[in-house]
Amino acid sequence: MDLKALHKKHVLTPWVAQKPLDPPLVVRGEGVWLWDQGGRRYLDLSSGLVAVNLGHAHPKVAQAIGEQAATLAYAAPSLFHDKRALLAQALSEIAPWPEGARVFFTPSGTEANEDAIKFVRHLTGRFKILAAYRSFHGATMGSAALTGENRRWPAEPAMPGVVHFFAPYPYRSPFYTEDPKEEVKRALDHLERVLLHEDPKRVAAIFLEPVVGSNGVIVYPEGYLEGVRAICDRYGILLVFDEVMTGFGRVGAAFAAERFGVVPDLITFAKGVTSAYVPLGGVLVREGLAQAFDETPLPTGHTYAGHPLAVAAGLAALRAYQEEGLFERARRMEPFFREALSALLAHPWVGEVRGLGAFYGVELVQDRETKEPLSPWHAPFSPPMQALLKALFAEGVYLLAKHNLLVVAPPLTITEEEFLEGVERLGRALRRVEAEVVR
Amino acid sequence: MDLKALHKKHVLTPWVAQKPLDPPLVVRGEGVWLWDQGGRRYLDLSSGLVAVNLGHAHPKVAQAIGEQAATLAYAAPSLFHDKRALLAQALSEIAPWPEGARVFFTPSGTEANEDAIKFVRHLTGRFKILAAYRSFHGATMGSAALTGENRRWPAEPAMPGVVHFFAPYPYRSPFYTEDPKEEVKRALDHLERVLLHEDPKRVAAIFLEPVVGSNGVIVYPEGYLEGVRAICDRYGILLVFDEVMTGFGRVGAAFAAERFGVVPDLITFAKGVTSAYVPLGGVLVREGLAQAFDETPLPTGHTYAGHPLAVAAGLAALRAYQEEGLFERARRMEPFFREALSALLAHPWVGEVRGLGAFYGVELVQDRETKEPLSPWHAPFSPPMQALLKALFAEGVYLLAKHNLLVVAPPLTITEEEFLEGVERLGRALRRVEAEVVR
Repeated sequence: MDLKALHKKHVLTPWVAQKPLDPPLVVRGEGVWLWDQGGRRYLDLSSGLVAVNLGHAHPKVAQAIGEQAATLAYAAPSLFHDKRALLAQALSEIAPWPEGARVFFTPSGTEANEDAIKFVRHLTGRFKILAAYRSFHGATMGSAALTGENRRWPAEPAMPGVVHFFAPYPYRSPFYTEDPKEEVKRALDHLERVLLHEDPKRVAAIFLEPVVGSNGVIVYPEGYLEGVRAICDRYGILLVFDEVMTGFGRVGAAFAAERFGVVPDLITFAKGVTSAYVPLGGVLVREGLAQAFDETPLPTGHTYAGHPLAVAAGLAALRAYQEEGLFERARRMEPFFREALSALLAHPWVGEVRGLGAFYGVELVQDRETKEPLSPWHAPFSPPMQALLKALFAEGVYLLAKHNLLVVAPPLTITEEEFLEGVERLGRALRRVEAEVVR
Repeated sequence: MDLKALHKKHVLTPWVAQKPLDPPLVVRGEGVWLWDQGGRRYLDLSSGLVAVNLGHAHPKVAQAIGEQAATLAYAAPSLFHDKRALLAQALSEIAPWPEGARVFFTPSGTEANEDAIKFVRHLTGRFKILAAYRSFHGATMGSAALTGENRRWPAEPAMPGVVHFFAPYPYRSPFYTEDPKEEVKRALDHLERVLLHEDPKRVAAIFLEPVVGSNGVIVYPEGYLEGVRAICDRYGILLVFDEVMTGFGRVGAAFAAERFGVVPDLITFAKGVTSAYVPLGGVLVREGLAQAFDETPLPTGHTYAGHPLAVAAGLAALRAYQEEGLFERARRMEPFFREALSALLAHPWVGEVRGLGAFYGVELVQDRETKEPLSPWHAPFSPPMQALLKALFAEGVYLLAKHNLLVVAPPLTITEEEFLEGVERLGRALRRVEAEVVR
């Protein structure tokens, strides 16, 4: 049996019905490129799931992984480990707290959010948590409860105690304004209203993606994150930034906290920490809070917490980011990325292109005036969207798509030529389908 | 700063207060041995957390990891992948269903249980789940809700809908009998009573460790698992075996389901699948059930689902188990392991030694008559237990301990000489502390 048929026979693929599946079967990667078993290559314009920030098969990270595998791939997390100490120190150094930080390592971003929930409840003695609609924090029962979109629904009833609020979304304002300043003012007023109806003294934390990820690549207008921080300070509420997507250079800085100059109390991370080469996530806790666990037991644990192979990969990835200046590079390339992507606005289906650093969203609409989505939110892909995704594979591009959104988030190492080729391929796919689809 | 101080400054360690920590800092492993930074070696008598079933630094698995890291460490889970297809096929072949199976890969055991919860609810349309007291299924909000011991408490209120029941525990019977047959009869009667009080038609599944793991290494008396299966069949309830610890040779077979000849509907796994070299877990779903996801979307997903580096490690590990006949070896060594461990019964603190395959529990008591635990259940380690754990490190042994239990679960590759040396070291530590501690 060929490998694709075998895959279909025995592997369950996330989030979708299995029968219609027919994606490429990839066997090799290098830089921004993936190859399938037939030797066709695909430009990985979303770094997998906004994760492979170093590109594929980075030789130094691959070598570090091979060496660690031959030295010590795993040991119980109750034992100390050299690379684990070194990576934690390095993360503390790039974290936004002058007081320093401690790290609890997990195997994934969703487990990082699960543990952050336990930490904030333990640290405050409070139960409720606020999170935004149009957010994704993971698929396990705690992080799914935080999630503000349809990937939460199949988990319900999940963990109790989460309340959702609306955050700014200038392209489709939930606050009935087109003025970004007014959007921010109303969004903060709305957040405080929700808090007052829930009792701020019962709220442990607000969880927030500092830039919304797969729900829109929404960059909050200036003043919003600062305003949320001020509200948290006013009521003694902890602020948790879910930087699983935004961390490790994606927004042109180590963390979005640094890019925006807004400092949370905890940061959850994953993906970019190892360029996704080995599953790893974690919670960064500022030192002043972490000290609570000196005398009382940490309320969580995992077999793969601080996994030696994973932390060795993280250490090598962090060194590569720093040696190659990739966080700064993503910042420097921002005007180029924006300019290149603005060419897509010539396509009638492209409603808006937004983003920063190496992180952009292309929101597709049937009509620019009505802004009716090309594929409805919270439903399977519409036929035009299905045709577009097929055309993208035909043009040799892999892109993360959700509903009517394409996420353009290439490896931070991408050259200008490669990026322009990606935009060109994306444009060709759009043209092909715009011409084919009778609307 | 030295590495241990650095570790303490920046890393949060699972489940314990951070201040008193002073374990070895390990830097290297080979076979059953770990080395710390000073060159001292420790016998890893618990395979980490019952995970490193191949021993440390298995050359073929290490090589496969290095090669895959250089080829393709990661790609989005929506793309198919060669090794993922091959590992899923291989797992389907060792799974206990003639109809075949499909696999959903996760980064960890706890995420496997989270996803299994979603699957059984989706497949049955029912909400409640039954799980045993004295069980551990993970620390995220769904699997923590399943967990039947104190590691659940800091997560509460976690996911709703889980009801706990008592399962057999012959050494401290919850059913007021010393006769194993009567224990089974009463345990099944108790389970059915709980079901009838909860309404069996509202129960989606029973989750069970087929051999209880860190809560006692309790081997259920003959007839119990068969009886649970029969109850599930009677009420249309799915049976999920959590084989995160028991899988991949630990009990002398691929899965405990095979060893005991009792076939569940789903199996969750992790740990041994890669010998813990790369974080990986998953849910095996028998084909007849998995077909439900052909037309309706799978209700879950993770960035690291079917992670290429992890599945490559799994494939190499599975080949190593099979080439070296390690599942059968654990079965063949069972009489030797039992005989060697029975020497520990000469120690007054050793209340019972139990287990099978390469999986044993040593339950420590203050007094064999009263069976009063050496360290109280659901509380920090008592001073004698703390002294014993310190003595074990001093004797060069790493052992997983929980409350008054030591888990003896060496790599399946351990030689007779190494095992005897481990038991000897454990015996010396016991003697040393029994003599020192004034009770």
